[in-house]
Amino acid sequence: MLNSSHRLNVHYGGAEANVASILANLGHCVHFATKLPDSPLGDAAVRTLHANDVDTSQVLRGGSRIGVYYLESGDSLRYSKIIYDRLNSAIAEMDIGEWDFDKLFDGVTLFHITGITFALSEKWRQYGQKLIQEAFNRNIQISLDINFRPSMWTIGQAKSAISHVLPKISYCCANYLDARNFFDIDPSIARPGNMEICYQKINQRFPNIKALYATNRHVISTSDNSLQGIFWKDGQFIASKSYQLIPIVDRIGGGDAFAAGILHGILQNMNLEKTVDFAIAIALLKHTVKGDWIPISERYVLDWLKTPNGDVKR
Amino acid sequence: MLNSSHRLNVHYGGAEANVASILANLGHCVHFATKLPDSPLGDAAVRTLHANDVDTSQVLRGGSRIGVYYLESGDSLRYSKIIYDRLNSAIAEMDIGEWDFDKLFDGVTLFHITGITFALSEKWRQYGQKLIQEAFNRNIQISLDINFRPSMWTIGQAKSAISHVLPKISYCCANYLDARNFFDIDPSIARPGNMEICYQKINQRFPNIKALYATNRHVISTSDNSLQGIFWKDGQFIASKSYQLIPIVDRIGGGDAFAAGILHGILQNMNLEKTVDFAIAIALLKHTVKGDWIPISERYVLDWLKTPNGDVKR
Amino acid sequence: MLNSSHRLNVHYGGAEANVASILANLGHCVHFATKLPDSPLGDAAVRTLHANDVDTSQVLRGGSRIGVYYLESGDSLRYSKIIYDRLNSAIAEMDIGEWDFDKLFDGVTLFHITGITFALSEKWRQYGQKLIQEAFNRNIQISLDINFRPSMWTIGQAKSAISHVLPKISYCCANYLDARNFFDIDPSIARPGNMEICYQKINQRFPNIKALYATNRHVISTSDNSLQGIFWKDGQFIASKSYQLIPIVDRIGGGDAFAAGILHGILQNMNLEKTVDFAIAIALLKHTVKGDWIPISERYVLDWLKTPNGDVKR
Amino acid sequence: MLNSSHRLNVHYGGAEANVASILANLGHCVHFATKLPDSPLGDAAVRTLHANDVDTSQVLRGGSRIGVYYLESGDSLRYSKIIYDRLNSAIAEMDIGEWDFDKLFDGVTLFHITGITFALSEKWRQYGQKLIQEAFNRNIQISLDINFRPSMWTIGQAKSAISHVLPKISYCCANYLDARNFFDIDPSIARPGNMEICYQKINQRFPNIKALYATNRHVISTSDNSLQGIFWKDGQFIASKSYQLIPIVDRIGGGDAFAAGILHGILQNMNLEKTVDFAIAIALLKHTVKGDWIPISERYVLDWLKTPNGDVKR
Amino acid sequence: MLNSSHRLNVHYGGAEANVASILANLGHCVHFATKLPDSPLGDAAVRTLHANDVDTSQVLRGGSRIGVYYLESGDSLRYSKIIYDRLNSAIAEMDIGEWDFDKLFDGVTLFHITGITFALSEKWRQYGQKLIQEAFNRNIQISLDINFRPSMWTIGQAKSAISHVLPKISYCCANYLDARNFFDIDPSIARPGNMEICYQKINQRFPNIKALYATNRHVISTSDNSLQGIFWKDGQFIASKSYQLIPIVDRIGGGDAFAAGILHGILQNMNLEKTVDFAIAIALLKHTVKGDWIPISERYVLDWLKTPNGDVKR
Amino acid sequence: MLNSSHRLNVHYGGAEANVASILANLGHCVHFATKLPDSPLGDAAVRTLHANDVDTSQVLRGGSRIGVYYLESGDSLRYSKIIYDRLNSAIAEMDIGEWDFDKLFDGVTLFHITGITFALSEKWRQYGQKLIQEAFNRNIQISLDINFRPSMWTIGQAKSAISHVLPKISYCCANYLDARNFFDIDPSIARPGNMEICYQKINQRFPNIKALYATNRHVISTSDNSLQGIFWKDGQFIASKSYQLIPIVDRIGGGDAFAAGILHGILQNMNLEKTVDFAIAIALLKHTVKGDWIPISERYVLDWLKTPNGDVKR
Ligand SMILES: [Ca+2]
Ligand SMILES: [Ca+2]
Ligand SMILES: [Ca+2]
Ligand SMILES: [Ca+2]
Ligand SMILES: [Ca+2]
Ligand SMILES: [Ca+2]
Ligand SMILES: [Ca+2]
Ligand SMILES: [Ca+2]
Ligand SMILES: [Ca+2]
Ligand SMILES: [Ca+2]
Ligand SMILES: [Ca+2]
Ligand SMILES: [Ca+2]
Ligand code: NI
Ligand code: NI
Ligand code: NI
Ligand code: NI
Ligand code: NI
Ligand code: NI
Ligand code: NI
Ligand code: NI
Ligand code: NI
Ligand code: NI
Ligand code: NI
Ligand code: NI
Ligand code: NI
Ligand code: NI
Ligand code: NI
Ligand code: NI
Ligand code: NI
Ligand code: NI
Repeated sequence: MLNSSHRLNVHYGGAEANVASILANLGHCVHFATKLPDSPLGDAAVRTLHANDVDTSQVLRGGSRIGVYYLESGDSLRYSKIIYDRLNSAIAEMDIGEWDFDKLFDGVTLFHITGITFALSEKWRQYGQKLIQEAFNRNIQISLDINFRPSMWTIGQAKSAISHVLPKISYCCANYLDARNFFDIDPSIARPGNMEICYQKINQRFPNIKALYATNRHVISTSDNSLQGIFWKDGQFIASKSYQLIPIVDRIGGGDAFAAGILHGILQNMNLEKTVDFAIAIALLKHTVKGDWIPISERYVLDWLKTPNGDVKR
Repeated sequence: MLNSSHRLNVHYGGAEANVASILANLGHCVHFATKLPDSPLGDAAVRTLHANDVDTSQVLRGGSRIGVYYLESGDSLRYSKIIYDRLNSAIAEMDIGEWDFDKLFDGVTLFHITGITFALSEKWRQYGQKLIQEAFNRNIQISLDINFRPSMWTIGQAKSAISHVLPKISYCCANYLDARNFFDIDPSIARPGNMEICYQKINQRFPNIKALYATNRHVISTSDNSLQGIFWKDGQFIASKSYQLIPIVDRIGGGDAFAAGILHGILQNMNLEKTVDFAIAIALLKHTVKGDWIPISERYVLDWLKTPNGDVKR
Repeated sequence: MLNSSHRLNVHYGGAEANVASILANLGHCVHFATKLPDSPLGDAAVRTLHANDVDTSQVLRGGSRIGVYYLESGDSLRYSKIIYDRLNSAIAEMDIGEWDFDKLFDGVTLFHITGITFALSEKWRQYGQKLIQEAFNRNIQISLDINFRPSMWTIGQAKSAISHVLPKISYCCANYLDARNFFDIDPSIARPGNMEICYQKINQRFPNIKALYATNRHVISTSDNSLQGIFWKDGQFIASKSYQLIPIVDRIGGGDAFAAGILHGILQNMNLEKTVDFAIAIALLKHTVKGDWIPISERYVLDWLKTPNGDVKR
Repeated sequence: MLNSSHRLNVHYGGAEANVASILANLGHCVHFATKLPDSPLGDAAVRTLHANDVDTSQVLRGGSRIGVYYLESGDSLRYSKIIYDRLNSAIAEMDIGEWDFDKLFDGVTLFHITGITFALSEKWRQYGQKLIQEAFNRNIQISLDINFRPSMWTIGQAKSAISHVLPKISYCCANYLDARNFFDIDPSIARPGNMEICYQKINQRFPNIKALYATNRHVISTSDNSLQGIFWKDGQFIASKSYQLIPIVDRIGGGDAFAAGILHGILQNMNLEKTVDFAIAIALLKHTVKGDWIPISERYVLDWLKTPNGDVKR
Repeated sequence: MLNSSHRLNVHYGGAEANVASILANLGHCVHFATKLPDSPLGDAAVRTLHANDVDTSQVLRGGSRIGVYYLESGDSLRYSKIIYDRLNSAIAEMDIGEWDFDKLFDGVTLFHITGITFALSEKWRQYGQKLIQEAFNRNIQISLDINFRPSMWTIGQAKSAISHVLPKISYCCANYLDARNFFDIDPSIARPGNMEICYQKINQRFPNIKALYATNRHVISTSDNSLQGIFWKDGQFIASKSYQLIPIVDRIGGGDAFAAGILHGILQNMNLEKTVDFAIAIALLKHTVKGDWIPISERYVLDWLKTPNGDVKR
Repeated sequence: MLNSSHRLNVHYGGAEANVASILANLGHCVHFATKLPDSPLGDAAVRTLHANDVDTSQVLRGGSRIGVYYLESGDSLRYSKIIYDRLNSAIAEMDIGEWDFDKLFDGVTLFHITGITFALSEKWRQYGQKLIQEAFNRNIQISLDINFRPSMWTIGQAKSAISHVLPKISYCCANYLDARNFFDIDPSIARPGNMEICYQKINQRFPNIKALYATNRHVISTSDNSLQGIFWKDGQFIASKSYQLIPIVDRIGGGDAFAAGILHGILQNMNLEKTVDFAIAIALLKHTVKGDWIPISERYVLDWLKTPNGDVKR
C-alpha cells in the first residue's frame, strides 16, 4: 500500500507520450512536443523518450515542475489507485506562444492529441483547439483520443471544448460512452455491442473522420481482464478476438498502446483485420510489463501474432 | 525456497495484533497488551503497532526474545510453509502478575483474545482464563477467536482450557470443526452448509454468546482460493457472497482480518448484511498484500464495496 | 544520477518534523502541527510520524498536495543535490484560521519553528509571526531555528519577517552568518572562532534569548565532513569536540538533529557540556543513516557517548 | 523486457545439471561431469552444484568461457524468450581425451545425458556416442533425454547422431514428436493420446529400452499451463492426473525435473503409479520457483503428495 | 536501524563455521560437526557450508531451533550492534552422547574449537573439555581460539573451564587480555607491544602450545580500522604490517579469518612470515564483504599478496 | 564476490562508447559506429547510447554475440576484478567492408578510436589502420587513446599496429609508459614527473600531434585514489590539481571520461587550464557513479567547478 511504502519504481509516461514511444519503437519518425522543467527529472523524461527513439527536439524546457502520478498497484480483488499530482506542471502552465507553429509542424504528416491535454486547464481547452486548427491548416491528419477523465473535468466542459475540433479530426478513439457524450449518438444506438452502426452514424455527422476505434474491457478483477479491440475505417468494421489477460502486471497505458497500434496500421496501409490484430497485440503485451508503454519492435509483434499462446521462444 | 534464501522481508504480526492493527486503522481506540523484549526487534514491533495507530502503553518490555516465524511463501501448486520459532518468547515466559488488571482493563469495553495465546504454554492456559475472568468481572465484552492450531496443542488440551471461558464469551469466531470439538455439536449438524442451525445450538448452550462467525475457504491452489464469510447475531444468520481470489499475495492473517471486520460491524451497530460484507471485504483485501494485516481505513473499505471488481481508481 | 534513476527510496521529513521525531524518540511528548493532504501520501507521513511516537492529532488533513523533494545523493567529490517540488503544498496553501490557537497550544510548554516555514510564502511570513505571538501570549517558550535558505527568499525578506519575533524567542539556532544577517552583529565579531562573544552580544540585544547554538561543519568532500557543536546558555559557552565523519550516508537533517539534542538537554536540565555532547552525538549519528532523522532512544545516545569510537556492541 | 533491464538475477543450470541437482537433493549420490572455465563464474557454477549435494570432482576446469543464456521472462500473454550465448563454451570446445573413462565411470550405475549435449557441436555428436559406448561397455544403465532443440540442429543431424545410441539406452524421455522423428513411429500411431501403443512399439524395436516417459503440456498462456506426466515401464503404461499451473513462475527445467523424478522412482523401485506421481510433483513444483531446478527433499515431495492443493503448512 | 528495517540479508556463520569455511575454500578437507534443526533453516546452513566445500556428514539434525543473531550494521561513527538470539539452539541443547567419538574423530588430524562454544551453557563447559580430551587421546592436534565474550560468561567461569584444556592445546589464539585472564601472565608483561615475551612465557607454562597468535585492531571508527597480525611459533615471533581498512564492509568474522589463515600456514608448513602475511590478507579481505567469511581460494590470496594495493585486475 | 552472486547490475560501455556518451551528454553531435547483434541485448546497448543522445544510425546490426565483461567490484583493500568474455563478439568478427567509408565519415570532423579496438583481433589491427587512413584522407582530425591492455596483446604487437598510424594522429592520450613503449622516448625522460619534456619530444617526432594528455593515478586502495590530469597542447603544458577520491564507487571508464573532457575543451576552444580542469572534473565525477560513464551536462560540470568540495546544492 502506498501509505506504507519505502520504495517507488519510477516510470515516465502520459497519454500522448505513450503513443509516441510505441510508434517510435515500431520504427516511425516521431517528434514529441511538450514542456518539461529544466531539472534532472525533466532530463530523465527526455532521456527516456530518446531511449525509445522519440525525437525530443520539440520539447520545451523550463517552468516549475513535472506532473507526477503515484500508482498504488492493485492485485486480485484490490483495485489499482492513481493519485495525481500535476498541479502547476510546466506543460499546464506554458504559454502557447512558446511554440512557433511553422517550426512545430514542419514535416509533420499526422498530429495526435488526447482529451487529457485539453483537460489540463482552462487555458489548454483553447490551446488544444488552436493546435488542431494550426495542424489542420497545414493539411496534417489529426488523430484524437477522447480519453475522457471525469476526475479532470465535466462532460459539459469537455463537450464544449471538443465539439469544435471534431470536424477536423481524421482518426478518433471513442467508445460507446464517448459516442453518447460527445457525438450525440442516442444511447439506444451507442451500446457496446452495436459500435459498427454507432461509428457509421458518427462518420455521417463528421465525414472527415476516416477511422474510429476503441477497446472493450471486461474487468473480472484487477489481475484478470478480457480485452477486445474494435476498429471502423472507411465504412468497414472489425472486432478482434477477445483475449483474457491473467495476470495483469500493469494496465495503465493499455488504451494508448491500442491507439498506437491502430495508427501504425493506418500509416502502414495494413488492412482492417491486420490493423486491429496488430493493435490489440500491443495493447495486450502492454499489460504484461510495468510502466506506461512497452518497448517492442514491429518484428516482435509480428512474431507474437504467429503464436499468441505464450510458449517459450528458444 | 527458504533453504536457499538470501533475503527476508520483515513483517510484524500475530493473531491478536492483526485484529488490533486493523481495528485501529479503522479508527477505533485500540490498546494492545503483550510483552516484548527490550531490544531493537521489540522496538520495531512497538513502532509498527504505533504506526498503525495502536496504543502500546500496555506493552510490557523485557524477557529474553521475540517470537518469530519464517514464511516460505508458496505459489500455484506449491504450499506456503510456516516454520515457528517462538520458544521462550517474552510473552510465553511472562508472569501474569506483571499486569495490574485494574490498569490493564481501565476504560476497556471489549477484550479480544485467541486460542493461540492459550496454546503458548501450560501457564498461558491459566492466564487466558484469568484474563477473561478479570475482564468479565469488569463487565467488558469478551471476544474469542478459537483459532485452534493442532501443531500447538491437542484438542483435549484446548477443550479443557477453553470450555471454562465459553460461558463468559460474547463474540466468538468458530467454524464447523470448532463447533464439533469445543461446543459438542454433533457432526451431523456441525457441517459447513448448516452453520445457521449450528450457531443457533451453540447460542442455546451458551446464551451469553451474542455473535458467531467464521470464513469458508475453498483452496484450489496456493494462488487461488474462494472465500465466504458467515455471521450469526441475535438469532439472525447471513452468508456473504463467495469471492474468488486470484492471485493470493499472502493469506496469513485473512481470518484475523475477517474477525476485525465483524467486530467493527458490531461496534458500529451495522446490520448483519453490512457487517458481513465489510468483514469479508477486509479479509479479501488482506490476501492482496504481504504481511499479517492490511492498513486501510473505513472509507477505503466502503469505496471498495461500491465497486468490488478491481477497476482502476483515477 | 537522478536523470537515470529507476527507483526512489521514500523518506518523510522536514525541518520541524525532524526535530519532532527525534525528541519523541528521546521520550518527550511531542505534538506536530501541519497540514497534509487527505491522500495515501498524507497518510504515509502521518503513519511515519506516529511510528516515531509523535502525536499527530494536530495535523490538519486536506489541501491539494504534499511538498516533495528529490535528493540526488552524492558521494566523494560529487555533491548531493536537492530538487524542491513544494509549490502549492497543503501547508503552504492553508489558512491560519484552520487552527484554533487555544486548542493548538493547549498543554504546550515549548514551541519550535524554523525559518523554512516562514519562507514558504508571503502568507507564511505573517503566519509564523502570528504563531509565535500566540505561543508567547500563553507563556510558552519559543524555539527558533533560523535555517536561512537563500533559494527560498532573500536576506531582506527573511530579516523583515524574523526581526519581529526575535524578542520573543528563548532558544535560537544561529550561526555566524545568521548573527551578521539577522542580529546585526558586526562581521568582525561574528566569525566562526568567536561565537562566544557573538552570542553574548546577541543576548545583550535580545535578553529573552536564553540559549544560542549552531554546528560548525567543515566539508572535505560529500563523504567526509568534520562537525562540531557550539552552545551558549545563560552566559556560558561551550564547544564540543570536532568529529570527523567518514563516510557520510546522508547529512540532510544533521542540523535538525543537533537542535533536537540541544532542546533535549535544555528540557532535561542537563549541564552545558552534557547538552552539547548529547546534541553533537545525535547530529553525528544522523549522518550515518538515510532519511531526515535517526530513530534512537536516549539510552542509545548515552551508550554511544561512553565509547564513541565505533567498536562492535555484542 | 531484456532491452531495458538494469538488473539480472543469476541462476545456474543446464539440462543434465538440472537432473543431477534434483537427484542429489533427493538423496542420491550424483557425480556431474562437465568442463567449466577456471574463473569466478566457473567457481560459482561448481559452488551451486555443490550446495545442492552434487559431487563435482569430475568437473574439468579450463577453456575460454561458460555458456550463458538470457531469459526474458514472460507473463500472461507475453512469451518467455531465451537468448542463447554459448558459442565457444568450455564444454563445447573440450577434447574428449581430457577424461579418463575408467576414472569417469568408476562406481557409476546410471549415466544420464541429453540431446542438447549432442547438439553442442559436430565434435559433440561423436563425443556423445563415445560416452554412451564407454558407459555401455561398463554395464552402466544409460538414460537419454532426447530434448530435441530445432534452433540447435536439424532433425536429420539429430537422427543420424542419436540413432546409433538408441540400442544401448535403458531409460528414454521421448514425446510423440520424438517417436516420429527418431524412432520412425508412424504419425498415425505417434499421437499425444496414443502413447502407450507408441511406447510399446518403440520397445519392440529397441528391447533394451526399459522405460519411456514424457510430459504433456497444454499452454493456455505463459502464466497458465496444464501438465501431465506419462510413463511406460516393462510393458505397463500410466498417465498422471493433469494439473493446472496458475501462475507459472518459471517453466524452464520442468521437463528435466520430471526426468529426475522418473529416474528417482526407477532407482527406488517405486511402482509405476508412485513413480509418475512423484515425477509430476517435482515437475509441477519446479514451475513455482525461479531457476532451472527446485531444491527439495524426498520428504518434501511425499508431504506434498498427501495434500497437493496448496493449503498452508503450519 | 534494526528498529525500522523491512528487509534482512541472510548469512550463515559462527566462530568455528567461519574457520571451517575458509579452510575448505583454501582447499583443505574440513569436516564440520554441530547440530542443526531438521528444518529449512537448518538445511540452508548445511547447503551453505557445502557450497563452501565443507563436509557436513558430521552435522547432527534435530532439536528445536537454530541460533540466530541480528546485526545492526554501523557506519562511520555509529557502532555495529549484535543482538543474539541463541537460547535453546539445537547445538546448545544437544547431548554429547549423540556423537560417537570414534566416528567423529576418524581421520581427523587437527581439531579446532573456540571459547564461544564452551560459553553456550553449563553443559557445554563440560562438553568442550570432553571433546578436547577425546581428540587429545587420539593424537589429534588441538586448536583453540579463546574468543572470550563477556556477554556470555564471566572471566571466572571461562577460566575454570578453559584452564583444564590448556595443557592439551597445540595452537592458540590469545591476545594480551587473554594472556592476563587465562594464562596468568602479569599485566606488566601482557601488553600489546610486548607479545613476543608474553607468548614465550605462555609456552614455558604450557610447552604443548606450539603456536600463538592474535590480531591487533585499532578502531578509528566503524568504517576505519587498522589491523595487524602477530604470530609466535616454536620460539620465533613475527608481526605483520599494520594495514588500514577504509571502508569496512563487515568486520564480523575477521578474527576467525585470521585464525584460518594461521592454521593454513601451519598445515602447509609455510614459514612464519608467509604464514602471518597470508593470515592477515584473509582477515583484511574478510572485512570487505558481507557475511561471516570470505569465499576465496589460496591462489586468490597469493595474487593479492603480490599487489595488495587495490589496483584493478583486468 | 562473483563466485557467490545472485544478482548482477547491468551497464553498457566500452572505451569508445564511453567517450561518445560523455561528449553527447555535453551537447556534441556524436555518431557511434560499431556492430551489435540483432538481439534484445544489442537493442539494449543501442537504447542506452540513444538515451545519452548518441546518434546510433551507424551501428551495424548482426553477428553472433555482444562482448561482455563481469566486474567483481572491490572495496577497501580488495581489488576490483574484470573477467572479460568478448570472444566472437559481433564487432570482433565483422568485416570492414560492411561499412561504406563515404557514408561512415560523412560530416565527421573528429574521429576517436582506442588501442583496445586494435587489440580485438589480428584483423582489427588492420581495420584500425584502415579507418584512420580513411578518416585522414578526408581531413578528419584523428584522436587516439592508446589504452594499452597487456592482457589483450603484447607491446610488440601493439607497437607494430600503432606505429603506422601515429603520424596521422592529432590528439593522443599517452602516459609515460606509452611514451616509452610506442614513442621510443627514453625511460630517463619518460617519467611521471617529466611529462612536459616527454610530450615535447613526442611532438617533435610526430608534428601532426597537436595535443597529448593522460591521468596520473595514485592507488592507496580500491576505495581511495588520487587523480591528476596532465595536458600538453601546441607547446604548452599544464597539470591539474591532484584530487583525492574517497570513496570510489567505480573507477572503470575514468580515463575515458578524462579523454572526453579534453576533447570537449579542444572542440570548444577552451584554454589549457580550463580544458584540464574540465576534463579532470568529469574524470573525478565518473568515479562516483556505477557504470562506464557519467551522464552529466556541461552546465553540471561548470557548476561543480565553482565549488568542487561536495557541499549540498539546495
Ligand atoms: Ca500488482
Ligand atoms: Ca488510456
Ligand atoms: Ca508468492
Ligand atoms: Ca487466523
Ligand atoms: Ca551516497
Ligand atoms: Ca537543517
Ligand atoms: Ca514472470
Ligand atoms: Ca527440458
Ligand atoms: Ca555499513
Ligand atoms: Ca571472532
Ligand atoms: Ca564497491
Ligand atoms: Ca580507460
Ligand atoms: Ni522526424
Ligand atoms: Ni536521437
Ligand atoms: Ni520498472
Ligand atoms: Ni545462493
Ligand atoms: Ni513487506
Ligand atoms: Ni484508548
Ligand atoms: Ni534505464
Ligand atoms: Ni530508506
Ligand atoms: Ni502531549
Ligand atoms: Ni500514539
Ligand atoms: Ni558418488
Ligand atoms: Ni561435497
Ligand atoms: Ni533467483
Ligand atoms: Ni516502515
Ligand atoms: Ni575429509
Ligand atoms: Ni549477502
Ligand atoms: Ni547501475
Ligand atoms: Ni551528427
